This record gives sequence, C-alpha cells and structure tokens, in this order.
Amino acid sequence: MRVELLTVGDELLLGDTVNGNAAWLGRRLADHGVDVTRSVVVGDELDVIVAAVASALERADAVITTGGLGPTSDDLTRDALAAAAGVPLVRDPELERRLRERVARAGRELQPMALRMADVPKGAGVLANSAGSAPGLRVQLPGGVVYALPGVPHEMRTIMDEVVLPELARAAGLPAVARRTLRTDRVWESVVATKLAEVEAMEGVRLAYLPDPAEVKIRITVAGPDAAGRLEGVEARVRELLGSAVYGAEEDTLDRVVHRLLAARGETVATAESLTGGLIGAELTAMPGSSATYAGGMVTYATEAKHRLLGVPADLLAEHGAVHPDVAGAMAAGVRDTVGATYGLAVTGVAGPVTQDGQPVGTVYIGVAGPGDSRTVVSPKLPVPGAGPELRAVIRRMTVVHALELLRRVLLGLDAEDESEEAQADREDRD
Amino acid sequence: MRVELLTVGDELLLGDTVNGNAAWLGRRLADHGVDVTRSVVVGDELDVIVAAVASALERADAVITTGGLGPTSDDLTRDALAAAAGVPLVRDPELERRLRERVARAGRELQPMALRMADVPKGAGVLANSAGSAPGLRVQLPGGVVYALPGVPHEMRTIMDEVVLPELARAAGLPAVARRTLRTDRVWESVVATKLAEVEAMEGVRLAYLPDPAEVKIRITVAGPDAAGRLEGVEARVRELLGSAVYGAEEDTLDRVVHRLLAARGETVATAESLTGGLIGAELTAMPGSSATYAGGMVTYATEAKHRLLGVPADLLAEHGAVHPDVAGAMAAGVRDTVGATYGLAVTGVAGPVTQDGQPVGTVYIGVAGPGDSRTVVSPKLPVPGAGPELRAVIRRMTVVHALELLRRVLLGLDAEDESEEAQADREDRD
Repeated sequence: MRVELLTVGDELLLGDTVNGNAAWLGRRLADHGVDVTRSVVVGDELDVIVAAVASALERADAVITTGGLGPTSDDLTRDALAAAAGVPLVRDPELERRLRERVARAGRELQPMALRMADVPKGAGVLANSAGSAPGLRVQLPGGVVYALPGVPHEMRTIMDEVVLPELARAAGLPAVARRTLRTDRVWESVVATKLAEVEAMEGVRLAYLPDPAEVKIRITVAGPDAAGRLEGVEARVRELLGSAVYGAEEDTLDRVVHRLLAARGETVATAESLTGGLIGAELTAMPGSSATYAGGMVTYATEAKHRLLGVPADLLAEHGAVHPDVAGAMAAGVRDTVGATYGLAVTGVAGPVTQDGQPVGTVYIGVAGPGDSRTVVSPKLPVPGAGPELRAVIRRMTVVHALELLRRVLLGLDAEDESEEAQADREDRD
Repeated sequence: MRVELLTVGDELLLGDTVNGNAAWLGRRLADHGVDVTRSVVVGDELDVIVAAVASALERADAVITTGGLGPTSDDLTRDALAAAAGVPLVRDPELERRLRERVARAGRELQPMALRMADVPKGAGVLANSAGSAPGLRVQLPGGVVYALPGVPHEMRTIMDEVVLPELARAAGLPAVARRTLRTDRVWESVVATKLAEVEAMEGVRLAYLPDPAEVKIRITVAGPDAAGRLEGVEARVRELLGSAVYGAEEDTLDRVVHRLLAARGETVATAESLTGGLIGAELTAMPGSSATYAGGMVTYATEAKHRLLGVPADLLAEHGAVHPDVAGAMAAGVRDTVGATYGLAVTGVAGPVTQDGQPVGTVYIGVAGPGDSRTVVSPKLPVPGAGPELRAVIRRMTVVHALELLRRVLLGLDAEDESEEAQADREDRD
C-alpha cells in the first residue's frame, strides 16, 4: 500500500514551523508496514490543494492530509475535498451540537465562523476527534481514499492511532516488515558496523544507523514472511554481538535507563555541571517520578564556585584550572556529599567558541563519584563537526549523552572506556 | 519568482529526520522576497527524483533540491539531474583534486566511491562548498533552473547564503516584501490582537502571530513599493502600541536580552530550580560569554534540599509545602546569597502528571530576589493544552520562558504582572 502525505499550511512553506507531523506520520506508518512514497507541503490555496490531492492519487492508494481544518477563512481542506469529490459541504447537526457544547463547557463564546468545523463534504466519513474541536474526515475519491486530519499534533496523532492506522493496516494486509530500533552506547560507533557485518548479510534484513549527532541508534528492519518472528531472532543476535553496549530500545532514553538502575537499588544521583549549565539535571528530571532517584544538583559555572560550593581543592584549581580530570572527580564527590546522594555526576570542559584555561574547544572531563569515594573519570573525544554556529550547542549535548552513558557504565560495573582495539583505533583516528 | 523545494532522502519519508532544511529554506527565501510555493519530499529513487524535478519546473521558475549528493550508492541527485538534462556525468579534475586533498588533510583514506562527489552533469555550474566535501550544482533545464545542495544543514546554508540567494534575489528584482519578527512578553498575548487592530487595517500590511506554545512572536509583513521603508514605520508604530512588552526582534532570545541588561550594569543572576530541573541554567549558559552575567545555580528538587541548601525556612515548608509563593521568594534570596549574585531567580511548581503538596498540575511560582532583599513573585496561569503526554514538558518549557520574562521585567522596573483590564480578563478567562 502506497501512501502520500499532504501537509497544508502557509506557515510551513514560510518556515515558521518545521514539519514534525510528516515525520511522525512517516515513522508511524513505516512501523505498520505502510510505505510513505512522497510528502508534499502546499499553502492555503483551494485550487492548489485540490490539484495536489488529485496528483497524489494518481501515484498512491491513499493520501493523508494534515492542516486546514480549523475555523478560519484560511482553512480550506474541507472545501478542497468537497470540490475534489464534486459534492457540496453539508452542516452536520451532531457535530454542531458537540461543538457548541465543547465551547460552552470552556466558558467561551462560539464565534460564528467556528461553525465551519461542523461542515462535512456530503457523503464523507467523520473521524471523531476526542482531543479537539475539528473532526477528521474520510473522503472516497475515484483514485483512492483521502484521510484529512487536524494539524494540531496531539489531535492528529490521536485520530491516526485510533481510526486511520487500524484501517490502513487492515487494507494493507499483515505488515510486510517488522522494525526494531536499538540504542547503544556511543563508545561503540566505529565498532558496531564491523561487529554487525554478519547480520547485515542476512537475507531480508537491513540495518540502518540513524543519524543523530549524539546518540547511536540502530534500526533493524526485517522484510518477508514471518517478519515479526524473524525480527525477534535478529534482535537477539544483535544484542549478543554488541553485549552491554545496548542500553535500550525504541524510546528507552538514557535518563530512563539510569533512573531504572538507580531505583532498583534504592540509590540516588546528584549532578554538578559547568559547561552544560543544567542540561543534565533537566534530562534527569524529564521523567515523571524522577525525584525518587535524582537528588538535585548544582551549576558551578565559575571556577571559584567549584571550590566554594563543591569543595574542589583550591590548589588543584590554581595549578590546573577548572578543566582537568581531577577537577571532574572532585566536583562529583563534592556534589554527592553536599546535595546528599549515592553518586555524584560531574562535567567540566570547554564548549567554545573560545578556549579555556589553555584547553581547546571540545575538551571535556566527566566524573562519577560513588560509595567508598570510588571515582571514575573519562575524557570523551568529541568529534568536532564542520565549524559552524551550532558547535557550542552540539558539544553541550554530546557531553550530556556521554555523562549519562558513563553513569550507566559505572552502575553496571562495565569498563568506563571501551578498551577494544577498534575503539582505541577509533579514538586515535579522531585525534 | 516562484520556487519549489525538493528534499531527497528515504530517512525523511520514514520520519527518522524532521525536515529542518525545508523550514530554514522557506524562511530564508521569504526574507528575500522569494515565495516557496510547494515543498516536496521524495525517496532515494532515480526515476522519482527526475519526475519530481520535471513537474516542479512545470509550476515554478526554480527548484532547490537538498540531499542525495553524498558518496554512497543511495546518493542519486547528480544522476537524476544529468538524466533530466539529457547529458552524461563528467568527472571534474579540479573537484577530484580538492577532494583528495581534503581527505588527506584529515588523515583518512579516500574510498573509491567517494569520487562520485567529483562528478558533475556536463555543462552544469559548480557551487563551491567551503564547509564540506560535495559541491552544490546549478543545472539549467528547459523549464527553469535547478540548484542542488548538500543535505548537511551547515553546508547547505553556507552555499545558499554565499551563492544561491544572491542569484535568486537578482533574478527576482528588488524584494516585493519586507518582513520583521518582533518578540513580546507573553503576558500580552490576548491584548496584542486588540491593540494592533489599527496596524492590521493598514494597506499592504499583514500581521501573523507565529505559533509557539511558550513565546509570542509577531511577524510584520509589508508588501508593495518601498516595502522596506514602510516596514520601518510600521515596526515603530507596533513598538509604540505595545510599549515595553516588546523585548526584542528576530533572534533576540530572552536569555540574550537578560544577559545584555545584566552586563550593562555589571550585575549577575543565580538560579534555583525545582520543576525545571536545570533548564533555566541551561538557557542562561547557551550564549558564549554568559559567564559574565550567569553566576551559577542549584537544582533543589527535593523539598528538604530547599531548606538545607538554600535556607528556605523549615516551618514555611512544613506549613505550605514546597509549592508556595513565599517559597519561591525564599529560594530566590537563598540562591542569590549562597551562589553569590546580584539577583536570584527561582521557580517552584507542579509539572505533573501528578499533583504535589495538594496543588494542581500547572501551579507555578516564580520569584526574583534582588538588592536590598527586594522580592517579586508571580504565578503565571499556564494554559493547559489538551491533555497529552507532552504536558509535563510543555509546563516546564513555559515556566522557563515566564521566569526569564519576570527577570527582564524586574531589571527594567516594569510591573511584574500586567494589570490592564484585558490582561485580568484574560487571566480570568483561562481559569
């Protein structure tokens, strides 16, 4: 089954909004074995929308549109679908009733123009929108079916999951592909491709290394008969080959992995940050219930604050400056004791664009201090991308990921740095 | 001049990557008076790319493609453009030389397949890529001109700004529109539309309120003769009508505005965060040179940490819990003195999904403590969007924005809360 996406909205062509809906739809449909073969964005123009729907249905079996279902005069998707079907728009009394009720419940006044959201191309199916005002629509045209969804992401996703995806999956038959995304410790990125050569050679199996400047994600796709069953076996083999480098799958983000490990032992972590400014604490507080394992933290941006607030020895700072492995270790121990946690996690380094304490941009030290004052410090070699204005932000983000990975490794008793021959060569390669 | 965008890449259809390039291009072209009339995404398939280029040139004067210029067998844009022009690919000796040199300088070995990046459709123009390996291309076809750019964002933007935009702007003549985006304090969002009615009524002037859950951005577009000159006058009138609510324009983010205000007086701020977990510190450290004005901060996630680390009175916490205006004020004063800064900025509240200390989700108190122990505390009414999994993240993000806005207002000596009739009605309206 071939599906095309049609996103309607001037703001997308003008670049005011990035097309997150199309990305989500592409991913969701792919997970259900439905191929998105083209994705088009057009503006709020009736004739253009009508023409785009028509040409999409010359190529594909179904079209999913988002946007243009709101109450304003710029919202033209309903009109376009009515025109494409050669039918009038008809006011649906039940939709009108629900709309009036919803507006009244919110204590607001109904704008007359909003009643357009109760109009439906004659004969079209209405897709209930439990999360918003405008319903989705299903319009059967000679060339195929059009699903029209609201542009508000949460509403669009709800209608997709509840109504459209089940219909498309049924129409397409059993999924022809099964997918699984594994997430791995980035120390392994150069090693992974070598180790997984045998899996890449398997019939009907494809491995994709998903682009991300900070995280390593491997998507396994198995196509063919019993794709789901085969996928289980392939995933097991990949995990066996990569061992402890695999920390999770799908949406298992590092912060959740770390929280689970700490919670299982009734342990906590505190954070001491310099260049990251609070980003690690923000990651560790993203998950509801994180207060059980995240004790709190400090942003010790100035060198002297590392001494005054965390007890990093003054002579250490005087001799080496703030960017030094022993400083990372002392910061970790200091925040562990000051905030009060089982572990302290600390970062110090140079995000740029200027050097600091004689250290080049991208020099970062990450420390974990645990019970018995055990200290582990690493210095990840951050691949420095083509110089651009995003460098500072990229270095900060990569430091966050490396910090959470180090904490995970310490909690699992794994080597802090991968000492395999390939990883060493990789590090030298980057220097 | 009508331009269409064609983004090439399977990963975009699969939703692995969001189409940030298309958004940037749409914005950049619009700023130069060039309309993007359609944006299409296709996969890595030769025939599909050829057909998409052809149909785009039936509708538009120029097409800008991104992606498909890399060294792998999936990179088919060069081949597609050669096919569309009916010419062979020719190896450019100068490009080959520069490629070999670039690879050697990085201490790497040249993969034979990478030499594809030195191939050029015969007769095409080469657009130098100072930031990467693959050059851009300019191909003249019967229907119009095609600019092919690399997909790597930084490289694409460099070639656009250095080569393509100047060409397109020259071809289009003087820009027919001029645009300016103003950024305003969100306290004003309901008031803005009323106050700006007179501007909206001006001939050739359009105001757009750009969608963003946390910030209020107003884009002024003026079309017609002397658009740039008229824009100056319109902007001045908007600023006059909105007064101090306007805090900046274009990319003047709140953190930069706050840094400028503090730096001008040689003052500093420290942050104490609970529900935001470090996000405010992260904002205030995003800008290079922020150490001059950001002193550091604390993430006091647990209630007792607010007492132990910041000196919030224990009886206050015992009586009211951690979510209370006086707690926000005490946290702000405490971090100001503990970290050592001119101002302390603190937030306490309930990000959800569960209530805390009897307070509903979305209850947030923000405090600023300054010299002479002046304290200002506000409780923004956070519009709670349709319940969805993003709620916690949205509440945290909006709290960050409100916190920086409060600090700005305190620094400028403005009312912490807008007491106008409309703003009060707006607050009641949201309750």
